[in-house]
Amino acid sequence: MMRQTVRDIGEFGLIRELRSVLPEKAVWNERLRAGIGDDTAVFIPVVDESLLVTTDALVEGIHFRLDWTDWRSLGHKALAVNLSDIAAMGGTPKLATVTLGLKGSEAVDDLRKLYRGMGALAAKHGVVIAGGDIVRSPETMSIDITLIGNTRLHGRWLPRTTAKPGDLICVTGTLGASAAGLQLLTLHRDDPRRNAKTADHLIAAHLRPEPRVAAGRLLLQHQAHAAMDLSDGLFGDLPKILAGSGVAAHLDAPKIPVAAAVRALFPEEWFDFATRGGEDYELLFTIAPATEPGLREELARIDVTMTVIGETVSWQPGEPLMTMTDLAGREVEVPSGAFDHF
Amino acid sequence: MMRQTVRDIGEFGLIRELRSVLPEKAVWNERLRAGIGDDTAVFIPVVDESLLVTTDALVEGIHFRLDWTDWRSLGHKALAVNLSDIAAMGGTPKLATVTLGLKGSEAVDDLRKLYRGMGALAAKHGVVIAGGDIVRSPETMSIDITLIGNTRLHGRWLPRTTAKPGDLICVTGTLGASAAGLQLLTLHRDDPRRNAKTADHLIAAHLRPEPRVAAGRLLLQHQAHAAMDLSDGLFGDLPKILAGSGVAAHLDAPKIPVAAAVRALFPEEWFDFATRGGEDYELLFTIAPATEPGLREELARIDVTMTVIGETVSWQPGEPLMTMTDLAGREVEVPSGAFDHF
Repeated sequence: MMRQTVRDIGEFGLIRELRSVLPEKAVWNERLRAGIGDDTAVFIPVVDESLLVTTDALVEGIHFRLDWTDWRSLGHKALAVNLSDIAAMGGTPKLATVTLGLKGSEAVDDLRKLYRGMGALAAKHGVVIAGGDIVRSPETMSIDITLIGNTRLHGRWLPRTTAKPGDLICVTGTLGASAAGLQLLTLHRDDPRRNAKTADHLIAAHLRPEPRVAAGRLLLQHQAHAAMDLSDGLFGDLPKILAGSGVAAHLDAPKIPVAAAVRALFPEEWFDFATRGGEDYELLFTIAPATEPGLREELARIDVTMTVIGETVSWQPGEPLMTMTDLAGREVEVPSGAFDHF
Repeated sequence: MMRQTVRDIGEFGLIRELRSVLPEKAVWNERLRAGIGDDTAVFIPVVDESLLVTTDALVEGIHFRLDWTDWRSLGHKALAVNLSDIAAMGGTPKLATVTLGLKGSEAVDDLRKLYRGMGALAAKHGVVIAGGDIVRSPETMSIDITLIGNTRLHGRWLPRTTAKPGDLICVTGTLGASAAGLQLLTLHRDDPRRNAKTADHLIAAHLRPEPRVAAGRLLLQHQAHAAMDLSDGLFGDLPKILAGSGVAAHLDAPKIPVAAAVRALFPEEWFDFATRGGEDYELLFTIAPATEPGLREELARIDVTMTVIGETVSWQPGEPLMTMTDLAGREVEVPSGAFDHF
């Protein structure tokens, strides 16, 4: 069979193909009145909701490499990073629009896989793909998703600027698996670490992160003070909460949760992966100490662990934002640093 | 002074710069609770609205050339093409998110101009720029905007699939000016047409289209049967209404409104510019004949002309979608053809 490309079937042919591979519940629901194929989607709001709007793009060569990811995983991840932003607000994702920037030489079948991955994750979270735009982009493929979600708790959501001194600083899950997975992808196929039993699991953490949507809603119900999702690494993201809230943090390095597989395969790098690696898409949040037991129990019910990794303290201009008891037990100052692609 | 680039100040520095050049009313309004600088915008819906969501991207080398457009016009146009989609639904634009794909070598000052152009048009239409994403895109600059609007007329909006046989087919304004402006940009600077008194006006029509937002609302109030905005040219876009509605069209070529300047500068090409040129961002719509006088009067009050260019007729499978009395008075069949970038 001939390999059919985007150039062969054109924009409108491709739209039909992509729509046809989406699960029906990812194309249409009772709140959508116009969707894929219309220039504009129509969405009926419900009473007493606040709308959350976020947008995140993945660019070839910067955020993904087609020799490292399969297409289905790429579709999953493009939506997952947006779901994670809604999760960090304590919201429920509802509706996505997708802009594909394509070279034209892409195989239609690969793009079907992309949409299957996106559609499966959308259906799982009750999100409709309501349309988008397909444009030619001569050198660089990209996927830009805008995701609309809501919260219905009397207009409340999880901000990142209202941490208070004396809060516990917590994370869901474990950190560093995504960076370890990315590192594994850079290794030669014959490298023994690449063929370790745990390697596939770590690579999956990088290629197909699972956004913490249900956990985010529990954080909101339990009145977490501040939250965000970990996309730029703990030492890159925590300062955004701290600076926004006017507090400092003291972290306890030995408490930072890191999977045993990450430590075993990367005995030198695991702490850097966990604190500066990024793309874990776990939730980072602060809570009043009294909140801890109840929240921990509720999170356990949906199989999400939480770990207290430090606490916030009052801050004065000129003081460091982050200090830490390091792995050797020394008190150190932590330079903040978010990864910047430019 | 050093020419400062995106690479010099990074993503977060750039976000601060761009926010600072937006008019205050394009950054914040009473419905927005979190905006630029937060990962996710929070927007409070009002009772009895339907939300409209659209997204349109402009890609360097495909939709614009930096040697043909100034940066301020580019910012205007990137938002205008999205406003036009909301206008075609009869909606009111409310909130935009902007994803910039940047090479890193762009001058910060140029991007400030981009945001000034976008911000001025946003403020004019009551739109807030609520955030977005800035990503590195190694070879190709792009601007992808998602725009949310609403309609409050009992959940009604202007669809494109409900034209009825016997409707009048109408357009706002004149057609072909944008294609003429684009053609002028391709001419050598010494070409006399490029220096004609009317050239700047035509080039402006291409670089800074004015979306017909107020006109779209009037079409909805006057119960136009079907509407869309003209982005792909009359002969490319009208078939979308026809095929969606199951009707055919008979057009009257001499009635298609074309500015005198377009005819004068392009005596050979003007009809093609008007029918296949695209990017006029006028509204194409169908109405019951009885609607015409009242709608024409209301549009005139906001200085928008409307022209009847044909009518819809019933259609049977196998019959042509479009026929036309051409400029020589002959009855001809019109092949439909939307421009496809692939």
